[in-house]
Parts: sequence; structure tokens; C-alpha cells
Amino acid sequence: MTAAGTAAALVTRPANVRYLAAAAPQGSALLLGRREDLLVCAGPPDDRPYDGRPDENLRLHVLPTGGDAAVAAADLAGAQSADSLAVEEHHLTVARHRALASVAPALRLTDLGGAVEQLRVVKDEEEISCLRIGAEIADQALGELLESILVGRTERHLALELERRLVDHGADGPAFPTSVATGPNSGRRGHRPTDRRVEEGDFLTVCLGATYRGYRCEIGRTFVIGTSPADWQIELYDVVFAAQRAGRESLAPGAGYRDVDRAARQVLDSAGYAEALPPLTGHGVGLEIDEDPQLAPAAMGKLDACVPVTVEPGVHLPGRGGVRIDDTLVVRPEADGGPELLTITTKELLAL
Amino acid sequence: MTAAGTAAALVTRPANVRYLAAAAPQGSALLLGRREDLLVCAGPPDDRPYDGRPDENLRLHVLPTGGDAAVAAADLAGAQSADSLAVEEHHLTVARHRALASVAPALRLTDLGGAVEQLRVVKDEEEISCLRIGAEIADQALGELLESILVGRTERHLALELERRLVDHGADGPAFPTSVATGPNSGRRGHRPTDRRVEEGDFLTVCLGATYRGYRCEIGRTFVIGTSPADWQIELYDVVFAAQRAGRESLAPGAGYRDVDRAARQVLDSAGYAEALPPLTGHGVGLEIDEDPQLAPAAMGKLDACVPVTVEPGVHLPGRGGVRIDDTLVVRPEADGGPELLTITTKELLAL
Repeated sequence: MTAAGTAAALVTRPANVRYLAAAAPQGSALLLGRREDLLVCAGPPDDRPYDGRPDENLRLHVLPTGGDAAVAAADLAGAQSADSLAVEEHHLTVARHRALASVAPALRLTDLGGAVEQLRVVKDEEEISCLRIGAEIADQALGELLESILVGRTERHLALELERRLVDHGADGPAFPTSVATGPNSGRRGHRPTDRRVEEGDFLTVCLGATYRGYRCEIGRTFVIGTSPADWQIELYDVVFAAQRAGRESLAPGAGYRDVDRAARQVLDSAGYAEALPPLTGHGVGLEIDEDPQLAPAAMGKLDACVPVTVEPGVHLPGRGGVRIDDTLVVRPEADGGPELLTITTKELLAL
Repeated sequence: MTAAGTAAALVTRPANVRYLAAAAPQGSALLLGRREDLLVCAGPPDDRPYDGRPDENLRLHVLPTGGDAAVAAADLAGAQSADSLAVEEHHLTVARHRALASVAPALRLTDLGGAVEQLRVVKDEEEISCLRIGAEIADQALGELLESILVGRTERHLALELERRLVDHGADGPAFPTSVATGPNSGRRGHRPTDRRVEEGDFLTVCLGATYRGYRCEIGRTFVIGTSPADWQIELYDVVFAAQRAGRESLAPGAGYRDVDRAARQVLDSAGYAEALPPLTGHGVGLEIDEDPQLAPAAMGKLDACVPVTVEPGVHLPGRGGVRIDDTLVVRPEADGGPELLTITTKELLAL
């Protein structure tokens, strides 16, 4: 609010509401004022569970007959004789922004920008602990899958099986749609599972994550199906592994986002995979699976301690398949032992 | 475009892009011009599958290095010397709208409003056929669950089991998060499954749907666990059943949205459940699970033939539980046999 020069701010992006209010009932909006903060809900919060309970220091304002919580909050801000209100212009639609302006015409609406997102980048130990538990759950689910018979099963079924195991082990749910990619699909970022069945000789890329108390982590591994990998598979795996290690090892407080990206990228590049390069090699995780920072060539900024990020370079060769290796780590200073690896499943090339 | 008085229109809401272009690769935008239509994609469409393949009559424009497809499309519209562009102000954020305006300052931006959503309300027989198959899949998944042992299993596990069965039977995936509600949770709209286990004497409310070729349907049923339901359970079930039947029977071309709602609502009301009444008793389904029309007290408009809607009244008594019965039907004229029921699982009160 100080930065935006306003007396009040209205937070509407659900992950931002959740971060500041400890709960974000569906359709709620958080009004931050000089004197008090108000969580405006479209209905009783118990009927619209998200995760967590609203912070006890917040006053709740329930709209008994529903309606748009952000519009109601702007109305309240206007009634409290605030003269300006900072809103999240990257989240509010043009139509809702207009509705806000018309309900409180005396309010000057300004842009809060990504202020709350920036607060979310560095995590406290309680948040990191949720990520750590989520990573353990994902490791367990993946470990159990590897002990089962894979040949002949479809990508879709393996993905569903993994999601069931995540919940079995205590996850709120998957952190994002589980990706299982076999054969020519392997190594593709965000591949949606199909009805293709696992075959002998395939690469198998699995990418999954658990949500635990709202916090989302990510792990990705590539395996080979059958007794022994082909030469091209070993070669490609080694390159991606080296790139991922270079990315991991460059994580440190003060390292530039683009420098981490470059560390991983140049290994792929110098091995001749410049064409197959992804737009980014990692990103922040937390209440959303893809949050700041972006580890990409044009990203500006430097890492801080206690920032959890993924390092996930991959190569996909059209028609053949590929490799992706993805970890969630927390940036820690050298004195504390360097980056903390949350997802500990082996990165050896396993033949299953 | 005629209504908006512009030479070009930019469609960004994913379900609207999918409807007009037969595919909506993630982050894509559809530019409709006087001479040609252009699907702008942030990357190769094959790498960002959604469902379907782009319409063959469309020209594809791929942004090789990513970026915001809507902003790129506005730039293209400006370069094609269009003087005005209608955009979806209910979907574009204020920040993206500003980016569009700044990339093509000579373009006058107007509001397309819900024009595409209105086109989507009446379905053709191909769309209805997808909904019909989705409903069959949901009926199958639900039928199989009822044959299994339920006592002692958690809401979460039953929900995951149902979602696995949906995919087993050929669904793209669940149409929305499957809701399983037991005992005191039963009858709550949109209840998120918890770790509560099914107990003897419980009401069990299940609400699920399949997505098939992008089209989403919905079915909800309430059962009683054990040999015989209690008197209050029979009584409550009969009331909700009567309300749901009244809603279904009022579906006809020309019937007002609010009249269908009132038909169901007044049965609940006159049975003394005025307090527990939901904000709506049904809604349209299609490429999204909750689309126009809304069957609610203040809704304006009348049903047409070939509009698929849900009819889903429910009552939840805090602390005790409740009943919800939910069908997907297609509005048909009397001469064609009246409303077509897509979800055919029995609505008798089954004791499981």
C-alpha cells in the first residue's frame, strides 16, 4: 500500500489471499485497510473450503446471498471513506475492474502489481516444511510405482495410479496434472497422458507433485524400460543429467536467475541440443506450482536464501522421445550446506 | 463483430477459442478478421495439447519464442490496418488489456462481451452426442462403485476410485473435481472429499462427471448406507426427489430459466426447507461444466431446444447431512418426447 500510495488494497488472486489470510474460500477477496483487514466471502467460509482456516486477526464479512466479493469489498472501502484502493490489475478482469469502479466512484483505483507475489518468493521454515513433506510424499508415490509392473500399462493409468498414491500418503491432492510420457512422448514438458502403453525399450518420463497444506512441489524422472538402455539413450541421459546437475550446483543466494538457467542450458547447448532447448529450466514453487522466480534466459533478479525452485532441464527429440530430470530444491547459503534437495529419488538411469 | 461494430475480434477465453477453432492450445488466442481467421499460439500446437486439432480453415500463427498470444494477435490486427478490435473484457485482465492497447495504439478496443458464450448455449447434435457418451461413462463409473463395499472407505478414496473408473471407460478425465460426501457432509454442493469414512446409517452423496472430447456432463445421487433408511432420511429424500422431478418436468423450449428454478424451489420451500435453499437449481453444461444458462431466481431468458442443463436441487441440514439429486438433460420439444435424460442411473433411494 505504501508503494502503491493508497490507503487500502484489495487482494483477489486466490494464492495471494491464501498467503495473507491463511485461507481463501472460493470467490473471496481480502481488503487491507489502515485500521483493519477484512476477508470478504461470497458465502459462509465453511461451505467453501479451500485449505486452512482464516487468520484469527481478520474480520470476516460474509455476503449472505452470494455476489462478487471484490465488488462488495470496494463498496466497503468506499463506505469507510478511503479515497484510493490498490487492486491486482494482473488478476482482475476489465469487466470486474469496471464493476469495482462503478460501485465506488469516489475511489481512485491504482495498481498493486505483483507486490504480494514478491512477498511470497522467500519462504519461512513453516512453508518449507510443507514443501518438504510434499516432496517426501511424491518420492514415496514414485518409488512404489517403480516396484510395479509397467510394460503394457497406459500413460493415463500410470498417472491416475500415481495420483491415488499421493493421496494415500497424505497429500491434499496432486500439485498439478501428473504427466506420464512413454516412448516418443518421453521428455516432453507438460505432456498430457494418452492411451499409449509402455513398451520394452521405451524411455518413460514421469513428472508429479504433491500439494501439502496448500504448498506444491514437483519431481520428474526418466527411466528406461527393459534390461539395458540403447547407446543413444545413455548418451542423452548423461547430457541432461549433467545439465541438471550444473543447474543445481549453481543455486546460491545472490546467483542471478539467468545464470542458473545458463549453467544448465550451456551443457545442453554444447552437446548439440540447441534446437531442442526449453523456454525455461526452472521456476519457483509454493502455493502455486509455477511462481516467481523464472529461471530463464531473459529473467532479471537474483536468488535469495529460502527460495524453493525447480531445476528441470529436458530434451525432447521429435519422433524418438527424450529425457527430463526435475528436482525441487531450496536455496541455502554455502555455510548451511548449500542447496537443500527436497526430492531425493535417485537420478541414476534405472532400467525397469 | 457486427454487434460490437468492429472489423476484427479477439477471442481469448479458452472454451470460446476451443468452440470456434476446434482446438485451444494452452495460451492461444483467436483473431477473427474480415478476410481470415488466425489462431495465434504461444508455441507449436502439438507441444501444448488441449483437445482436438485446429480447424483446417484456420491459419495458424506460432510465436516461436513464446510470449502472450493475445498481445501478438493485437499487434497483427493493428498491422492489418484494422481500426477497431472487440475483446473479451470479462476474460482479459486489466494488465493484459493495457498491454494490448500499448502494442497497437491505433486500435480502438471495444467489448465483445459474452457473444461467443451466447453462441455456445444451443448445442448441435455432434456436441450433444459427446455429452451423451460422457453421461454414459459417468453412469458406468457410478454403477461400478455401488457394487463395491463402501463402509469404512474415505470420501477421498471413493472420489479417486470414481475418477479412475471414468478414465477406464474412456473419459478424457473428470469434468470437475469429484465430490463424495458422507454423513454430516452429505447434500453439500461442491463438497471437497475429506478423510471421513463411510459409516452405517450415513447418507452418501456422490457428484461426478466425465469430460468426453472436451464436453462435460454431471450426475449426482444420494444413497443411504445400511439396511434401511431412517424416517427423516426417507422424508428428506422424497422432498428433494419431488423438487428435482418438478424441475425436470418444467424443461421445455420457451420455459423461463427462473420458472424451472421456481418449479424445483417451491417444492423445497413448501416442505419447510426455505432456509436451506441453494442459490441455483441448475445450469448449462458443455465445454465448461458451469455455463449459461443459470437456472436461478433472478435469471432472465428462456430455454431453447437443444440446450443441455443440469437439474440439481439439494438440501443440506447442518450437522445432520442432506440430499442432492443431479441430472444432465437436453431440452427437447414435446413433439420429440420432451426433455432427454442423459444420466440414467436410478433415482430410487438405494440402501447400500
